[in-house]
Amino acid sequence: MSNSLGRWFRVTSFGESHGRCVGVVVDGCPAGLPLEPEDVQQELDRRKPGQSSVSTGRAEDDRVEILSGVFRSRTTGAPICMLIWNLDRDSSGYEERRWTPRPGHADWTAHVRYGGFNDYRGGGRFSGRITAGYVMAGAVAKKLLASVLGVEVLAHSKEIGGVEARDVGANEMRNNAEGNPVRCADPEAARLMEEAINEAASDGDSVGGAVECIALNVPPGVGSPVFDTLEGDIAKAFYAIPAVKAVEFGLGKGYSSARGSAANDGYTIINGRFSTETNNAGGILGGLSSGMPIRCLVTFKPTPSIGRSQRTVDVSKMVETTIEVGGRHDPCIVPRAVPVVEGMVSVVLADHALGAGLIPRVLGGV
Amino acid sequence: MSNSLGRWFRVTSFGESHGRCVGVVVDGCPAGLPLEPEDVQQELDRRKPGQSSVSTGRAEDDRVEILSGVFRSRTTGAPICMLIWNLDRDSSGYEERRWTPRPGHADWTAHVRYGGFNDYRGGGRFSGRITAGYVMAGAVAKKLLASVLGVEVLAHSKEIGGVEARDVGANEMRNNAEGNPVRCADPEAARLMEEAINEAASDGDSVGGAVECIALNVPPGVGSPVFDTLEGDIAKAFYAIPAVKAVEFGLGKGYSSARGSAANDGYTIINGRFSTETNNAGGILGGLSSGMPIRCLVTFKPTPSIGRSQRTVDVSKMVETTIEVGGRHDPCIVPRAVPVVEGMVSVVLADHALGAGLIPRVLGGV
Amino acid sequence: MSNSLGRWFRVTSFGESHGRCVGVVVDGCPAGLPLEPEDVQQELDRRKPGQSSVSTGRAEDDRVEILSGVFRSRTTGAPICMLIWNLDRDSSGYEERRWTPRPGHADWTAHVRYGGFNDYRGGGRFSGRITAGYVMAGAVAKKLLASVLGVEVLAHSKEIGGVEARDVGANEMRNNAEGNPVRCADPEAARLMEEAINEAASDGDSVGGAVECIALNVPPGVGSPVFDTLEGDIAKAFYAIPAVKAVEFGLGKGYSSARGSAANDGYTIINGRFSTETNNAGGILGGLSSGMPIRCLVTFKPTPSIGRSQRTVDVSKMVETTIEVGGRHDPCIVPRAVPVVEGMVSVVLADHALGAGLIPRVLGGV
Amino acid sequence: MSNSLGRWFRVTSFGESHGRCVGVVVDGCPAGLPLEPEDVQQELDRRKPGQSSVSTGRAEDDRVEILSGVFRSRTTGAPICMLIWNLDRDSSGYEERRWTPRPGHADWTAHVRYGGFNDYRGGGRFSGRITAGYVMAGAVAKKLLASVLGVEVLAHSKEIGGVEARDVGANEMRNNAEGNPVRCADPEAARLMEEAINEAASDGDSVGGAVECIALNVPPGVGSPVFDTLEGDIAKAFYAIPAVKAVEFGLGKGYSSARGSAANDGYTIINGRFSTETNNAGGILGGLSSGMPIRCLVTFKPTPSIGRSQRTVDVSKMVETTIEVGGRHDPCIVPRAVPVVEGMVSVVLADHALGAGLIPRVLGGV
Repeated sequence: MSNSLGRWFRVTSFGESHGRCVGVVVDGCPAGLPLEPEDVQQELDRRKPGQSSVSTGRAEDDRVEILSGVFRSRTTGAPICMLIWNLDRDSSGYEERRWTPRPGHADWTAHVRYGGFNDYRGGGRFSGRITAGYVMAGAVAKKLLASVLGVEVLAHSKEIGGVEARDVGANEMRNNAEGNPVRCADPEAARLMEEAINEAASDGDSVGGAVECIALNVPPGVGSPVFDTLEGDIAKAFYAIPAVKAVEFGLGKGYSSARGSAANDGYTIINGRFSTETNNAGGILGGLSSGMPIRCLVTFKPTPSIGRSQRTVDVSKMVETTIEVGGRHDPCIVPRAVPVVEGMVSVVLADHALGAGLIPRVLGGV
Repeated sequence: MSNSLGRWFRVTSFGESHGRCVGVVVDGCPAGLPLEPEDVQQELDRRKPGQSSVSTGRAEDDRVEILSGVFRSRTTGAPICMLIWNLDRDSSGYEERRWTPRPGHADWTAHVRYGGFNDYRGGGRFSGRITAGYVMAGAVAKKLLASVLGVEVLAHSKEIGGVEARDVGANEMRNNAEGNPVRCADPEAARLMEEAINEAASDGDSVGGAVECIALNVPPGVGSPVFDTLEGDIAKAFYAIPAVKAVEFGLGKGYSSARGSAANDGYTIINGRFSTETNNAGGILGGLSSGMPIRCLVTFKPTPSIGRSQRTVDVSKMVETTIEVGGRHDPCIVPRAVPVVEGMVSVVLADHALGAGLIPRVLGGV
Repeated sequence: MSNSLGRWFRVTSFGESHGRCVGVVVDGCPAGLPLEPEDVQQELDRRKPGQSSVSTGRAEDDRVEILSGVFRSRTTGAPICMLIWNLDRDSSGYEERRWTPRPGHADWTAHVRYGGFNDYRGGGRFSGRITAGYVMAGAVAKKLLASVLGVEVLAHSKEIGGVEARDVGANEMRNNAEGNPVRCADPEAARLMEEAINEAASDGDSVGGAVECIALNVPPGVGSPVFDTLEGDIAKAFYAIPAVKAVEFGLGKGYSSARGSAANDGYTIINGRFSTETNNAGGILGGLSSGMPIRCLVTFKPTPSIGRSQRTVDVSKMVETTIEVGGRHDPCIVPRAVPVVEGMVSVVLADHALGAGLIPRVLGGV
Repeated sequence: MSNSLGRWFRVTSFGESHGRCVGVVVDGCPAGLPLEPEDVQQELDRRKPGQSSVSTGRAEDDRVEILSGVFRSRTTGAPICMLIWNLDRDSSGYEERRWTPRPGHADWTAHVRYGGFNDYRGGGRFSGRITAGYVMAGAVAKKLLASVLGVEVLAHSKEIGGVEARDVGANEMRNNAEGNPVRCADPEAARLMEEAINEAASDGDSVGGAVECIALNVPPGVGSPVFDTLEGDIAKAFYAIPAVKAVEFGLGKGYSSARGSAANDGYTIINGRFSTETNNAGGILGGLSSGMPIRCLVTFKPTPSIGRSQRTVDVSKMVETTIEVGGRHDPCIVPRAVPVVEGMVSVVLADHALGAGLIPRVLGGV
């Protein structure tokens, strides 16, 4: 049951990196939502490899197929199964590395958990390729949220390889993020990030970073105390993305050294509407949306696959050895993770908006 | 359904700050675990107010009552209902503040979500007092983990009011954390933290901080890909604690500026056992425990209740006004949050260890 | 997790027959529903023992206490914990019978499942007394359904000890069922049922029977294909009532020997409204309510506790022996099961009506 | 979320009758189970149409494709996605019938629930064809249960069109059921059943019936009180099969007119093993398996699609009219439902056996 997420907008993931396909079943999407493969494809295209100089050269086409749940370009209320076929699979390198777990990957933990029966080729079930399924589900959620509630979910690379973007507003994120290979809304930082990536790549190394995500127009009161908080469910969804190691909301880690008088967001009236003076809370109080923009930051570790020699153990013989992980790997996964982060936030918001009764079970009527 | 957490070791929370009680139902605990009220009480005592100069002066006694699921000092396999009665309730101040939401609290979002029907006294369902239930459940989980797997869960205050403790090992956490009022395992930092709290308190202000938690002896392979990762479930559990705004594992946010070659934990053999040279991953890879210590950091915002005047809005008249939140509030909740953090980690680990089949459904036999 | 039922209106049961209490937590009830202890008490009173000549003489008072989730006589949206204390407990007889499982009871299966750690006194967790919690939850669900949707749930004893009531309409069920000790809406059958019970009782024996339940005014489209059907969820809820062994909807078992031409409910227009000519389907098609009355029949086995000598095995010595189950037991549990059946149907309907978005999350507003 | 069933062995169904495919995702199957497409195909073949004179003439090939979760003929612990493509689709007849719901089908309730957006062709999501997915999941569960626990699940047609088979034992079910077109283990009754079906068919009519299912070698203690009982979960699973209207265990409806002294299964010792003298309880007490064979009976209504003219309403004009449902429909679905019933029982038993810790998470080891 660990491959399903959500209660009302429920996503079930399947597929492996080097298996036949990667897919997802979305259960709970209301009937009547207009949905074309193109709606999903455009998000998938943002995640696919080989888009730029900073990403892997694999020529995966990744065309989505919608197998169920859509009839005459509308969702039917039935589960939506979507998948991409794995066409460009070269599993030759993995056999020889089977007994030498790659540092930073899940090779070892998966081996232990599944008694060695796991499909280890390309990381199998633990590959970043699995997130293609999240993006497909996210595309449906995004369209649902936009259509019914006018919610907009935006993300960009906030930090890469030690380069931090300046604080940007929603307009900059909307307009600038897709304009450079690193998907950073601050063009100056973007150039430095690209440099940092290329420098690491030329060293046979990789860099980490962080994605900032905001959600606009989320009505107040979305989320559920005490356990199904908006923060908790978003964080849980983020940790399903390989390489995520930190999740913050609003001021996040900055709260640690703050004082209450400065950190509390005072209430005020702006243009006749109840509002807060600041948004340190990142739009969430008590696990519920406040009506202010939701803002979060997700930190990714550097791509574990690097060209350099690393220490490992041959677990079949229990002797120390070294490994060089060749192949086509992004020196930084952050830019391609941007649509994945947007997708996960969209999935969680759709789930909670349905749970809060803000989205009807049928959109329009025949 | 938002008040339940977990699948195998399932916790259902109930109660309000100024209602009759705060309690919890634990469903799924194996039969045969020795359990006395004292096992739960000793954890509750660590959370209770009025323990020291840095915590509120309320004299809550908070004696646990076990209402079901235990027979002759052993768990029976039936749901365990536990509660504490609310005896020291003074709800007088809350009526006048009903229409002026306190900044940083969930007053406003709860009001919107529940149409004003929520019990607003003392924050009601959103009060930190709810975490007493988490601690009760955590005490059962902790005992279960220790008895069956030898797992030990330890936490301490890593940062308070800008003062950061030096890195400490498990022994220091075990021996030092309970030795000072701020529950910090670094005695020197502890003194400075205490000063920072007292200074803020004398200013009618509050400070935030962070709790570090480790879990020792967790067998490898605990957790579930892709959505029910150990990180995701622990993070989700943490965000159920009021005031949590950031959750990190291992190097956490530090990964953002790291390179793969430095961040990857190389594999090695130590004393004949497969191990990692470093533990930047915080004991979790691919959402599964690696066998290394699990290490995480939880950031808390400063107590929102401060003595100073803050801007708010009278929502019954929609006019701006100010509020001073009097009453007995901790100027820093981090020290009392330490057992709550331990409890939540214990609950999630017990849940996953049961899910992984590492804990039998019956312990011993009659 | 096996002690929770439902997804949107979620019921968590706790307590044992001879423990401190029997209770329930209801999570997901909308905020703003007027709720007094009396609303729950009146349903509990229908279930309580000692109401008539055909029921046990135990003088349990069974006063409900609402511990959480209600504030100023309105639900708050927080979990509602309710319980009755076990006051009239005489556990003396159970110790000697510990190793000789009573035929027809769960003594043996519980012993195996819980390794002998289960609270065996009075059947412990498997006692019919647990259904008091179902009735409490059912009372809340019933009030919610009636207030928001005008749904009415009615039940009566359709068959007892081989005596079958004639088919009755909703009016008769509403007016007659509470007018006789066996709760049968057909007064003539009621007299014969009472005789059958008394005859069995004078033989130291017991009789089985069946409860018929209808739900009026359920809007069409409630339920969820393919697994969370209305029939499936109602049946599952019924099987949580000890002694239930068959569940039918509409024509039920009669469909087995019917032909399609006679069994299909033809569509027609009655008073300008779309309707069916007959209601063999019991108001459910494809797992969804059709708008016609929902009708189901639940068969109960005879009370397993009888005065006669029965064969059993002393499992501590593994030798065959006999047992006479004394004590105060109803010779037929069907009459007292009537409010339990109503409660379970109400809980499932409330759950699905919330899931279908037919009940708002906030009722009214402050 | 209504298209998923189970907690540990979790089945998610997708697809429509006239869409691209019908499929299922199985999540939670342990790693290391040998699994070939042929294991699934042989069960699918029993369900497929066109097997005999009493079933529809459609030439669906229904070849299973396993898309994920199996690597080198072993399950990996990852979700197993399986599907059959819909190749023989003739949707031409459905357009004209769109506004005239077929009596006995879910056309009307689905239309209401999904606002007319549902895929109505061939019943869409409500078609019996969906059960192909259940059979695929059931095949995996069956193999898992047999391999690890030696559990055997058998079913046959107990009643068709008023003809009831005599009581048969496990051997007869195992040997005879597949030997005749109606899948009845009593050869004499089988002939009469076949006649009853053919007679109805020649009248343009259909007949109902009932499937009896037993499960052998289920260890005692499987199931979970109080809500996740074995009976409740099996019943819920059965009601996901279109046309099921009654579910009984053991003596079932017969308990209604029985006395406790006759109905209770006395305990005894047989060949040194604790046992019951009779098995009226159908192998389940208190929702837990007793170690005796599990026995249940599922009643199916007659196929709603009949050649005869039936009354209906044109809902686009709200006028009464008639409908003749042509096409290729089985005059009795009971024979083809036999493998579906076995599959559902297998799925529920696998789920509970995993939940009870009786099946390890990894089978064998590499």
